[in-house]
Amino acid sequence: MRRRPFLSTSVLDTSTGSTGPSAAGRHLRDGAFGNARNLVCRECGATQELGPFYACQECFGPLEIAYDYPSITRAEIEAGPKNIWRYQALLPVPTDIASSPNMEPGFTRLLKADNLGRALGMKNLWVKDDSGNPTHSFKDRVVAVALSAARELGMTVFACPSTGNLANAVAAAGARAGMKTVVFIPADLERAKVLTSAVYTDSLVAVNGNYDDVNRLASEIAGEEEGWAFVNVNVRPYYAEGSKTLAYEVAEQLGWRLPQQVVVPVASGAQLTKIDKGFTELARLGLVEETPYKVYGAQATGCSPVSAAFKSGHDVVRPVRPDTIAKSLAIGNPADGPYVLDVTRRTGGAVEDVTDEEVRDGIQLLARTEGIFAETAGGVTIATLKKLVETGQLDPDAETVVFNTGDGLKTLDAIADRVGPAATIDPSYAAFTATGLA
Amino acid sequence: MRRRPFLSTSVLDTSTGSTGPSAAGRHLRDGAFGNARNLVCRECGATQELGPFYACQECFGPLEIAYDYPSITRAEIEAGPKNIWRYQALLPVPTDIASSPNMEPGFTRLLKADNLGRALGMKNLWVKDDSGNPTHSFKDRVVAVALSAARELGMTVFACPSTGNLANAVAAAGARAGMKTVVFIPADLERAKVLTSAVYTDSLVAVNGNYDDVNRLASEIAGEEEGWAFVNVNVRPYYAEGSKTLAYEVAEQLGWRLPQQVVVPVASGAQLTKIDKGFTELARLGLVEETPYKVYGAQATGCSPVSAAFKSGHDVVRPVRPDTIAKSLAIGNPADGPYVLDVTRRTGGAVEDVTDEEVRDGIQLLARTEGIFAETAGGVTIATLKKLVETGQLDPDAETVVFNTGDGLKTLDAIADRVGPAATIDPSYAAFTATGLA
Repeated sequence: MRRRPFLSTSVLDTSTGSTGPSAAGRHLRDGAFGNARNLVCRECGATQELGPFYACQECFGPLEIAYDYPSITRAEIEAGPKNIWRYQALLPVPTDIASSPNMEPGFTRLLKADNLGRALGMKNLWVKDDSGNPTHSFKDRVVAVALSAARELGMTVFACPSTGNLANAVAAAGARAGMKTVVFIPADLERAKVLTSAVYTDSLVAVNGNYDDVNRLASEIAGEEEGWAFVNVNVRPYYAEGSKTLAYEVAEQLGWRLPQQVVVPVASGAQLTKIDKGFTELARLGLVEETPYKVYGAQATGCSPVSAAFKSGHDVVRPVRPDTIAKSLAIGNPADGPYVLDVTRRTGGAVEDVTDEEVRDGIQLLARTEGIFAETAGGVTIATLKKLVETGQLDPDAETVVFNTGDGLKTLDAIADRVGPAATIDPSYAAFTATGLA
Repeated sequence: MRRRPFLSTSVLDTSTGSTGPSAAGRHLRDGAFGNARNLVCRECGATQELGPFYACQECFGPLEIAYDYPSITRAEIEAGPKNIWRYQALLPVPTDIASSPNMEPGFTRLLKADNLGRALGMKNLWVKDDSGNPTHSFKDRVVAVALSAARELGMTVFACPSTGNLANAVAAAGARAGMKTVVFIPADLERAKVLTSAVYTDSLVAVNGNYDDVNRLASEIAGEEEGWAFVNVNVRPYYAEGSKTLAYEVAEQLGWRLPQQVVVPVASGAQLTKIDKGFTELARLGLVEETPYKVYGAQATGCSPVSAAFKSGHDVVRPVRPDTIAKSLAIGNPADGPYVLDVTRRTGGAVEDVTDEEVRDGIQLLARTEGIFAETAGGVTIATLKKLVETGQLDPDAETVVFNTGDGLKTLDAIADRVGPAATIDPSYAAFTATGLA
């Protein structure tokens, strides 16, 4: 069941007309959103001017960004900064974005994963490792675009509800931007996750309740308080566009071509749909040849509403109550679930899910074959890749990119019972040789 | 007191003559070490052929790499991969290094730090943020060069003694290289630090004793076992060269020029001396204009033997027993200490030290001004920068680069008592407005 999106009347009322609305009653400057043209409803196709809106005025469907696509060359992109702003022309951000104080995320490693490929019986496998971002998850990408939108819309507070990666990214980006930043978390969050956000800000608010309670409170505040930009609520259409850069980078790093298969973790599902959007745009703009690709979604069995719908052949995603160690994917009612079904079915991919034990295996397998320590979400993706190969749903000979979107340092508990020293010895050569490791 | 370096007779005995020695009795291939010419003693200047040696055969002084420097252009470097291998020609690695399985470290962010600059009364400040490396410290750079040397020398085991960052980097790089990897750690190491290495390898060995005990055991094994490459022991001359890439990147990212001042943390001191070497090389090769720069060293007061020697005007560094929260800088008898004194005095810089409380302040200051969460070593550097400005030892108007070489996620305890939620509330708008954060 989709909750009716909240439309902030206080925000709408401040619309100033000529150049578009702004939360603080200021006019938008020219080019505030680069080549973005307007907002368009993903359900009914109605358009709306650019502003702090996230739901269609006609049907309450979700909005996304539409562009007047420029003509742009590979060389122009390659001459840009070594971060997501090299793709400025394809994002809803101004041309001077790279010189504003921001985290400069992106252009993370794309590693050829021959060891992992061998372990899985695959011929041509790559890992896109987004743990190299400033706060070590892909959230730095989306938050950077949301920050730009908040600034251009004249909003004065940068905020989010989160249980982890997003809180880190928002708190860090807000600090560097010098913007008032308020981050809402469930009060029972693990100490490490509290610290990794609290280090950046004095305005961390713990809320008695679960993530859904925190999220509801955020929507309420977004409606009541003027000028608050909740990155994943009222500036969500801008925020979500940041994930397109994952697709752009993969294509560029492969030498300007599309992979044949990609495996992407599914939480809200926005990342997967935006990677598809990114590939489509590159082909449309002539930056890559339009070659077919298949998109696969990965979920934890303990929170697999999209996988369940895919397997049942349903178009509707039935919400679930999450129960998995992959907390960063634990969204029981994923907003982009139906669009994930569209993309995976249209491209000939699939959505699969794996148990928490398989997730732990996946983390360990990736670490031991490629030296990449993924968070639980990465474990989900690797384990799903393995399952897709084993069940014949994914072609082991086709060029495949699997996404690691977070860092194992944030989810140490997942592997705590599985790994450790091989031996504990006295500091002597004799004691060492007795271990059999010599 | 300098311990007599151990010369492995088993390694020396396998020297095969014509093209140089190798640990496994194999010939070195042509170009195994790129443009490196030989090893040279930093004390007496005696030269030695390239091989698994780290101490001078004449005087037991430490060896470093000498080069037949090539002529190379900025454009050639810029056309290289977006990692440290773009500087292959200036490192002891072969021309095909980028295609070998390695972690692809480097080319981390250089961020303009205007907020931090304002807080410190500085006009032109940058942060080189090396926490973006694959295992989130600068150690990925040095380990990558050591790995290449180990491979080219035909060594079969990749190893190190470590208490943290180095263990992570070696275990990860060894896994990706598919090389047998053995990591030695003190048995009482914190759980998180054990896990972040153990995830990559089954061959983690806990040793009853402190870091010095572990280090001694490593030297003993290096002498007894054939083909073991301890990155920071018997292939140390190659390993240390990796830190030059920090200097290369800073100069390139500034638009091919040298900064006027740099502030670098001092553990063994190798990083500081190699940054100086890197700047010198760039000027010598005509890649940057030869402009003056001052090098500053940063230590924690609880382990400040180099700072103490600097302040006393001594040339000799008296070893200390470390007692500081900055564990990754806690080397009481720093091998490169005298060279740090040379560099800082020659360039007109200084070495300063700060208390653990100042270290915590430094971590928090950097996080809240620039959104960068540094490990304790980074806190040392930021706090030292502050002290250098306040005491008039560093020019607040000159262009300055400060190095963050590790990640706060690995040293959470340092800030655990200082930061946290501003409020804990029930999930209602009324409860939120009562916090005063609205």
